Amino acid sequence: MAPVKKGILERLNAGEVVIGDGGFVFALEKRGYVKAGPWTPEASVQYPDAVRQLHREFLRAGSNVMQTFTFYASDDKLENRGNNLKLTGAQINEAACDLAHEVANEGDALVAGGVSQTPSYLSCKSEADVKAIFRKQLDVFIKKNVDFLIAEYFEHVEEAVWAVEVLKETGKPVAASLCIGPKGDMHGVSPGECAVRLVKAGAQIVGVNCHFDPMTCVETVKLMKEGVEKAGLKAHYMVQPLAFHTPDCNCQGFIDLPEFPFGLEPRILTRWDMHKYAREAYNAGIRFIGGCCGFEAYHIRAIAEELAPERGFLPSASEKHGSWGAGLEMHTKPWVRARARRDYWENLKPASGRPQCPSMSVPDSWGVTKGHADLMQQKEATSKEELEQLFDKSKTH
Amino acid sequence: MAPVKKGILERLNAGEVVIGDGGFVFALEKRGYVKAGPWTPEASVQYPDAVRQLHREFLRAGSNVMQTFTFYASDDKLENRGNNLKLTGAQINEAACDLAHEVANEGDALVAGGVSQTPSYLSCKSEADVKAIFRKQLDVFIKKNVDFLIAEYFEHVEEAVWAVEVLKETGKPVAASLCIGPKGDMHGVSPGECAVRLVKAGAQIVGVNCHFDPMTCVETVKLMKEGVEKAGLKAHYMVQPLAFHTPDCNCQGFIDLPEFPFGLEPRILTRWDMHKYAREAYNAGIRFIGGCCGFEAYHIRAIAEELAPERGFLPSASEKHGSWGAGLEMHTKPWVRARARRDYWENLKPASGRPQCPSMSVPDSWGVTKGHADLMQQKEATSKEELEQLFDKSKTH
Amino acid sequence: MAPVKKGILERLNAGEVVIGDGGFVFALEKRGYVKAGPWTPEASVQYPDAVRQLHREFLRAGSNVMQTFTFYASDDKLENRGNNLKLTGAQINEAACDLAHEVANEGDALVAGGVSQTPSYLSCKSEADVKAIFRKQLDVFIKKNVDFLIAEYFEHVEEAVWAVEVLKETGKPVAASLCIGPKGDMHGVSPGECAVRLVKAGAQIVGVNCHFDPMTCVETVKLMKEGVEKAGLKAHYMVQPLAFHTPDCNCQGFIDLPEFPFGLEPRILTRWDMHKYAREAYNAGIRFIGGCCGFEAYHIRAIAEELAPERGFLPSASEKHGSWGAGLEMHTKPWVRARARRDYWENLKPASGRPQCPSMSVPDSWGVTKGHADLMQQKEATSKEELEQLFDKSKTH
Amino acid sequence: MAPVKKGILERLNAGEVVIGDGGFVFALEKRGYVKAGPWTPEASVQYPDAVRQLHREFLRAGSNVMQTFTFYASDDKLENRGNNLKLTGAQINEAACDLAHEVANEGDALVAGGVSQTPSYLSCKSEADVKAIFRKQLDVFIKKNVDFLIAEYFEHVEEAVWAVEVLKETGKPVAASLCIGPKGDMHGVSPGECAVRLVKAGAQIVGVNCHFDPMTCVETVKLMKEGVEKAGLKAHYMVQPLAFHTPDCNCQGFIDLPEFPFGLEPRILTRWDMHKYAREAYNAGIRFIGGCCGFEAYHIRAIAEELAPERGFLPSASEKHGSWGAGLEMHTKPWVRARARRDYWENLKPASGRPQCPSMSVPDSWGVTKGHADLMQQKEATSKEELEQLFDKSKTH
Repeated sequence: MAPVKKGILERLNAGEVVIGDGGFVFALEKRGYVKAGPWTPEASVQYPDAVRQLHREFLRAGSNVMQTFTFYASDDKLENRGNNLKLTGAQINEAACDLAHEVANEGDALVAGGVSQTPSYLSCKSEADVKAIFRKQLDVFIKKNVDFLIAEYFEHVEEAVWAVEVLKETGKPVAASLCIGPKGDMHGVSPGECAVRLVKAGAQIVGVNCHFDPMTCVETVKLMKEGVEKAGLKAHYMVQPLAFHTPDCNCQGFIDLPEFPFGLEPRILTRWDMHKYAREAYNAGIRFIGGCCGFEAYHIRAIAEELAPERGFLPSASEKHGSWGAGLEMHTKPWVRARARRDYWENLKPASGRPQCPSMSVPDSWGVTKGHADLMQQKEATSKEELEQLFDKSKTH
Repeated sequence: MAPVKKGILERLNAGEVVIGDGGFVFALEKRGYVKAGPWTPEASVQYPDAVRQLHREFLRAGSNVMQTFTFYASDDKLENRGNNLKLTGAQINEAACDLAHEVANEGDALVAGGVSQTPSYLSCKSEADVKAIFRKQLDVFIKKNVDFLIAEYFEHVEEAVWAVEVLKETGKPVAASLCIGPKGDMHGVSPGECAVRLVKAGAQIVGVNCHFDPMTCVETVKLMKEGVEKAGLKAHYMVQPLAFHTPDCNCQGFIDLPEFPFGLEPRILTRWDMHKYAREAYNAGIRFIGGCCGFEAYHIRAIAEELAPERGFLPSASEKHGSWGAGLEMHTKPWVRARARRDYWENLKPASGRPQCPSMSVPDSWGVTKGHADLMQQKEATSKEELEQLFDKSKTH
Repeated sequence: MAPVKKGILERLNAGEVVIGDGGFVFALEKRGYVKAGPWTPEASVQYPDAVRQLHREFLRAGSNVMQTFTFYASDDKLENRGNNLKLTGAQINEAACDLAHEVANEGDALVAGGVSQTPSYLSCKSEADVKAIFRKQLDVFIKKNVDFLIAEYFEHVEEAVWAVEVLKETGKPVAASLCIGPKGDMHGVSPGECAVRLVKAGAQIVGVNCHFDPMTCVETVKLMKEGVEKAGLKAHYMVQPLAFHTPDCNCQGFIDLPEFPFGLEPRILTRWDMHKYAREAYNAGIRFIGGCCGFEAYHIRAIAEELAPERGFLPSASEKHGSWGAGLEMHTKPWVRARARRDYWENLKPASGRPQCPSMSVPDSWGVTKGHADLMQQKEATSKEELEQLFDKSKTH
Repeated sequence: MAPVKKGILERLNAGEVVIGDGGFVFALEKRGYVKAGPWTPEASVQYPDAVRQLHREFLRAGSNVMQTFTFYASDDKLENRGNNLKLTGAQINEAACDLAHEVANEGDALVAGGVSQTPSYLSCKSEADVKAIFRKQLDVFIKKNVDFLIAEYFEHVEEAVWAVEVLKETGKPVAASLCIGPKGDMHGVSPGECAVRLVKAGAQIVGVNCHFDPMTCVETVKLMKEGVEKAGLKAHYMVQPLAFHTPDCNCQGFIDLPEFPFGLEPRILTRWDMHKYAREAYNAGIRFIGGCCGFEAYHIRAIAEELAPERGFLPSASEKHGSWGAGLEMHTKPWVRARARRDYWENLKPASGRPQCPSMSVPDSWGVTKGHADLMQQKEATSKEELEQLFDKSKTH
């Protein structure tokens, strides 16, 4: 029998660094198993080998948490706008739990079951309705006995609090992660206040994920920490940012950038950007450090390599990576061997190779949020007429 | 029994588009299975699941060719500069062939065995010595019965001709692909002249791979085609470029860019760049169209989607991709649904999100090639003293 | 006898737009008459033709204010760090007044005498000492009977208040202009609070000049206006920004940018940027709208052309300029004639032609202000040893 | 009586560096005295003070040549497309000669009279007609006794040869300068061949001016020199480039850039760029080194300062400029004093401050030249209908 693993709170209480995993929807979209637009995780059922392989890459790169690939797997999301999958949320979530458990058992990782924001909330359904959706997803996580729960990717703290309240009913440790920046949630609630509400609702770990680049996310979690401490409360902190540079975002994050989701390549962070991020997050007192959309295994490995001195070990994948470029000592060309040093990579300002492109964009700012007609859940596919209206609006905006 | 597949020449003779696969070393480096520096393919033995999964992604994206993951698997390269693997080239090549065959049989793909430039050539070994190295690799490809052979990634046409001469001994179709740009090979031989020599040596397919971005590679193959036609010869043409924008390269290609290999992210092509590339290659009369370093499955899929009208079918992976962003019709946010159209993505100039970075770099230009002391094969690891000298040279260059 | 001109307050009280002039030190530095470093205005004595010509260009472009070219002409500044001029402040200021009067009388412009921050303040001299310096300059302005007074280019509101108190003793209208951004003065006093203090000290016109780009300056003056109105006070507002884009500045403004002062060219605003600025300033309720360093005559003309509908007339220099590029209708090349339209120029994103340069810099941030040893007035030239120390500090900072 | 000055050929034959002046039309356009579109030099009559002042700035900056401000002052150009001036070419040219003589006599400068390409040539008038236009201009230059003649700004070597042939009739030294790049003239004649034809026609000095940035122009003159030497001929060489970076130009030069003429600011060269240019030109064996559009006095001064070691003296304007930023030793702020050194400015990569702008543009390429209907001379103003057609063409091109 496998030795019992230390739980998430045990680790954090002991001051350990817990490394999260990276982003499944973006990585699997590129590999051909997730459809951009609906972004739903039916691959857990349809292509288990692909999902398992990605879990393994993150594990090998140093992740201590395998999040079940259940993002957006609530029934109301699965049938949104013509996404006709013929799979229930329960089927997907069960398959995802099995895959996460299988790989987690191959190393020192915990399984986290996750729920995220619902179309029902944006459509102004009642608290009871929204909570019912979370509860239905939770049934699977309980049955499959995940190690802890994450309520993640919430734009409105109100809905996140509802999620935390439901997750708390299980008795499992609960983490809560908003997709907000320093300006706060879509209703203008500040990061500090958001964090306080989540901690009061019972979350033991709070933080942010997605929507902004690493440095912006760390800054936001710092504001959360200040709020929590000012309120005389206690919590652990997590951060799982994008692997895209987003200096030009407004409050809605990268969804508003013109490049989302099919032109983000020039913004992808290098492994050296990740070293800076890991150090900054650590210095800010954050101990659950991972990634979201855009993060691939080598980004996670960079976090693990940066924090190796603190943790005392390198991840398995460092077998195939010399820290700070040391592997280049073996390169055939002498001028590439000359790059096998930390100061070279630390100071590099990488060129885009795109002289006709700008370095910043102007984000779309339609200013619509919860309750707006355009955000309502709609089972049917978007009609041609609806699309034409949006195209026109987009061109004149 | 599976129906006999059409061979590579049958397809090209029939005017079919043959889609190549993408880059294994870069993709597997990011996933944690290849070490940058030596770039050797021991993962074929050590991590077959990871290699098989990548083959499957390319197959699913539309590739008709599974190249065996045997890049740089000549014995002289495997033991270069302290890369102590304890695996022979034969072991790696056999495993790689098995994986390529396994996945090729899951779809309509051929298996191509490949040899590439050798440290021995750069170290000025004799023609006989260099040819012996190719022959040794070939033994495995014959035993494993690959469908055709590719001599690829040669900086000097002289060595490529030697390779073609050896490959021709097998009776299998032979493709030859140089890693050169419009200025020609490292000895200054023009693309047209290079192509003529390769065709005369017996290559039925000629072209370029790696080192330059798609548009530059297509331009180079055009020059090859002109040369071949001017000489009254006939050939098929192939192109397998980088998935990185490299407008600032000199004749040695992306190896010279300061960002190589760990800071290339901002240069990664979008899927829309790939549409343009596929169209340009097709219009130039190139029919074997694939990718090299930086290409991931979604890049190959973009080629297959662009050429779907000509070919009459979409690749399997388009199940999870609406052409030209159509999947965004299902997105929750209205301003993202407004991006579900071709003219949006075709005209986007994606920002880098890096305002402190330039758009072009100055390439390193050490001006050393075949025969230079710094390029000699060396079994031992690069010493500290040797490295210090290179670091100093790099800073003052 | 010339008709008596309307005074500055009469004009502003009547709701008229008063257009300021542009920057003398930068324009005359490029023409060869001002030395960057000391930036002192001895050209008023040495090269009156050059100064007169620049006044005339601004007048012709639409300026209603001729500021005497007396910037930094306090005796303590004139003899700073080895700037051995053998001219007194009084000599320079008298000559400058004569030139400004001469040109102002050629059109509808007022003469404004100006004082600016002193090395004595930064060296922690007493209020009495600093005020004595202002008073000495003022003697000339009274003798030469300027139309009104401007206390401009102050980094610390405390010193600006002292200046206003001295200027008020003359009975002439007094404008006060700080070189601060939205974050406030060097002691952290907010723009709103700064404005309140200046108004309370007696300034009838308050605003900002220099140090930041037009949009940042307008934003700062908006904050001043909010502060003044919140305090139940009344004032007129002025803005005289840089003609350089400075999105990357911190609180000290463009002095900190690595490009200051000899590499600012790529940041120079186009005439179309000036149209946007003029409109924005007007909409913010600012009625004294001019420029500072980097502004040349055509920038001022653009302000006058943008506000021509409100003012009812074009400046003389529009004789040689078709609004919004209309003059291009006469160009020989058809594709240039095709640019003779407003939407072309309004939407142009001008390229830098510098692919190896970034779009933003990291400002120097030495964090030294009033009272720091490095800022003390020093009659002697900076010694070699002092310079070496600064060079070293600069490289490691 | 003033001592007789050494002539242009005496100087060049003696190996002296002759520094040209900068661009009048662009500088005077910014100052409000030239209209962009027609670009005609009527200011020589209308605003002599402004023209004289600009001559003086260039003289003071080091120019040894005062070009008469007669650009485009042929009668056929003066009445092109509705430019209703009521001044003859002769009137303008006489006034311009007087101004140039007046200032040249204040220092060590020669007066050069210039002719440039004619609308008549583009409209396919005969050689006799075109030559008659040159001859008419020449009458004035003879009467006013200029020191030498320049045929400059020719896009077609054929017309330039005609001009040289006419200028030679005067017996004065003749320089010929094309506005072409390395790809040659608008009819595809290579720079080397162009130069040979001009020398054979009698030009003693050949080179290029305008249309391209300094480095491109020097490269072009190098090709001219190679051509002349290969043909066994002899000549002196001149270069008078733009002060704008134009890496993205095609063969027609900066006219095609979308930023021409009202959005070129981000491309303006710094004084340090000019140091590199002056050195490069000198090393290429060019001895008549000046500037064209965009050059202001400080750019010319930079050339004179870079070549001061060779020439043995600094220009007058260096009184107000410390070489390589030395004047900053006197700056108040220590971090600016730290910039008083050559390596700082030599290595600076100046930021544009424009993160939403690209670094390169796509030039307009209408591909029309001599003989195309759109290029014909037309006395009447461009009509509304003609403009609308051009606007539409511009948008779809």
